[in-house]
Amino acid sequence: MSKLLDNVTNELQRLPGIGRRTALRLAMHILKMDTATVDSMTESISRFRHDIRSCRSCNNLSDEDLCPICSDPRRDRSTICVVEQVADLMSIENTAQYRGMYHVLGGVISPMQGIGPSDLKIDLLCDKLLTGEIKEVIMAISTSVEGETTLFYLLNRLKAFPDVKVSTIARGIGFGDELEYVDELTITHALINRREL
Amino acid sequence: MSKLLDNVTNELQRLPGIGRRTALRLAMHILKMDTATVDSMTESISRFRHDIRSCRSCNNLSDEDLCPICSDPRRDRSTICVVEQVADLMSIENTAQYRGMYHVLGGVISPMQGIGPSDLKIDLLCDKLLTGEIKEVIMAISTSVEGETTLFYLLNRLKAFPDVKVSTIARGIGFGDELEYVDELTITHALINRREL
Repeated sequence: MSKLLDNVTNELQRLPGIGRRTALRLAMHILKMDTATVDSMTESISRFRHDIRSCRSCNNLSDEDLCPICSDPRRDRSTICVVEQVADLMSIENTAQYRGMYHVLGGVISPMQGIGPSDLKIDLLCDKLLTGEIKEVIMAISTSVEGETTLFYLLNRLKAFPDVKVSTIARGIGFGDELEYVDELTITHALINRREL
Repeated sequence: MSKLLDNVTNELQRLPGIGRRTALRLAMHILKMDTATVDSMTESISRFRHDIRSCRSCNNLSDEDLCPICSDPRRDRSTICVVEQVADLMSIENTAQYRGMYHVLGGVISPMQGIGPSDLKIDLLCDKLLTGEIKEVIMAISTSVEGETTLFYLLNRLKAFPDVKVSTIARGIGFGDELEYVDELTITHALINRREL
């Protein structure tokens, strides 16, 4: 086999979910692309990896010292939504419904993987609460065991700020979900948190 | 959203089977990789696209003028296996059972897509047969309508070389396939081409 082809398929296999066959298929597709298109793709990957930073204030991915959300004067600075990762922040931003700020923890507490509270951006969150500007913290953390552990730890830390309201996003049956296929825990929560019409 | 992240997700979506969500997941994974690893990946993609060539003799992908198979003196030069694309050649090579040469057509005749015989490397194949060195041509072309059309066209062209034996790879029930789920055409062929034990 061609060394160039061999190299590119091996390198592409470093990406998640890409095995030998897919890497080969991608390589064949790359061959059919304009060289200029391939150049702009590789350059964007390289620049992304080298130049991206974490926002000094919220730990979101950013090109600058402060991310576009933190530097946007129209956002509501009295509310912070706490998420595990940047992808979660983006999912919420995609709804275009939330106008407050964010705080990206950068993971969840997971003793199994050796991730403790000090590995997450929790102190940075508490520092922001010290300013007294924040009125509400919305927890948007997953309901996994690690997520619940992290939530519990955060609630304890936030007890130091009794004036700050702490809430969590609603759990319930998703739109379009069929009750038949929804797990018992979700149905239980949906029943407990029912709304009067 | 960060411009760097936006760029990289847009560029990654040029690859087949990669939508917005997957591109984002790949970008997040790229962030966790060593910069050196990312550099070696982008460089291998770039070098592959810029430096790869087609073998002058068989149209296989190659780093040099002649591909490793065509320049290997231990291969049997009297047999040529005709395939549609490089991926097919690699599948056959992976069996390590075939010691002859190859010829990559670079596609199949498809009037719907405007691909005619002159777009494929058919003349190059005939030129090789002119030397009189070739004893057998094995057709390993897919059984699609376009594949059958291409096969028919090739058989006509090869009539000019009555001394060359022309064969096609066997069609039948694959190992591990269950008869219950095999299509009728394949079963019909498997019955007609049954072997005495």
